[in-house]
Amino acid sequence: MTTATELSEKTIERLCRVYGYLDALRHRGVESVTSKELAAAAGATHDTLRKDLSVVGVTGFTRAGYPVASLKQTLGEKLNLTRTRTAALVGLGRLGTALLDYARFSENGFKITAAFDSSINKIERIRSSVDIFPVRRLKEIVGERRIELGIIAVPGESAQQVTDDLVEAGVAGILNFSPVVVHTPARIVHVDIDFTNSLRFIAARM
Amino acid sequence: MTTATELSEKTIERLCRVYGYLDALRHRGVESVTSKELAAAAGATHDTLRKDLSVVGVTGFTRAGYPVASLKQTLGEKLNLTRTRTAALVGLGRLGTALLDYARFSENGFKITAAFDSSINKIERIRSSVDIFPVRRLKEIVGERRIELGIIAVPGESAQQVTDDLVEAGVAGILNFSPVVVHTPARIVHVDIDFTNSLRFIAARM
Repeated sequence: MTTATELSEKTIERLCRVYGYLDALRHRGVESVTSKELAAAAGATHDTLRKDLSVVGVTGFTRAGYPVASLKQTLGEKLNLTRTRTAALVGLGRLGTALLDYARFSENGFKITAAFDSSINKIERIRSSVDIFPVRRLKEIVGERRIELGIIAVPGESAQQVTDDLVEAGVAGILNFSPVVVHTPARIVHVDIDFTNSLRFIAARM
Repeated sequence: MTTATELSEKTIERLCRVYGYLDALRHRGVESVTSKELAAAAGATHDTLRKDLSVVGVTGFTRAGYPVASLKQTLGEKLNLTRTRTAALVGLGRLGTALLDYARFSENGFKITAAFDSSINKIERIRSSVDIFPVRRLKEIVGERRIELGIIAVPGESAQQVTDDLVEAGVAGILNFSPVVVHTPARIVHVDIDFTNSLRFIAARM
């Protein structure tokens, strides 16, 4: 059996999109989905999607449709998405504050269990069910609580230092919203989301 | 000469990252950059990056380094990033409000010139230099002002309707932050940013 870490990045990316789509269908009470719909959700051709699914052992996939709940369950297991992952959020500016209460994270198995900011003022002012700490305690808290993921929403100039501290404290994955490219050791799984670059990518193709 | 719309998506994506990196270097007062650094910023090999640059007419690129300002200028022209684009922001929840004042958009040639929400209460409460309207006036305002881009930060259930209205009003590009897949005609350039999916993509590879 293939494990998620042996799949190609592109396959994982498409299957994660399919998984998200299945989750949305389930919430809407839809019980069956066609492979054509799944291919559209994954942004892939029907053939590519079918190959992706067969790689994780989902076969017998026909145009007639597939049961949403069981396909979601199977994909979740193959992609290691069935258990809750803990995350540390660093930076509580406007974006960070929005992420702190982003309900879709907790609804989907990602729990922010600690948040950090450099401003004591902000730490005292923000009301949240999440524990908030001064950023100088980042390594200590993330290490003690064995937090698995880091979400970075600090300004560009502090992003690399925060990344280094998260890595040293033992996180295995980083989602970086700061507008700079941060560097991580190869063992760390790392995704950058740069809103401005996404707009540039759109504008360049308009 | 190759125009941006004739470049492959992957090339545009990498060159947009290079452009963003050059912009960051310029802000830090760095005057020269090596091709190795640029390749790292683009997440590409040295060879791929050199090919990308040669496609847009940048040649004579050596390991010795390249002047930041002139390379940024050249790339900006090739990628059509030198003039300001107008954008409409739809949805003023926590994320939308954070985007409304996201300084990096305006610093980088993207100007939100109108924002929309369905809650009159919210429209009256939010203080911003951007004009804010009820969402029922979306098509009218976006059309009249010939706004070029739509940024969607509404809940999933309204995302497709908002997309349809933006397209009908004449935008050429859409950045979708809602957690659903929206459908657009092929002529519309469209990027989805789904935070939860990015975390899934990380978790599946951890």
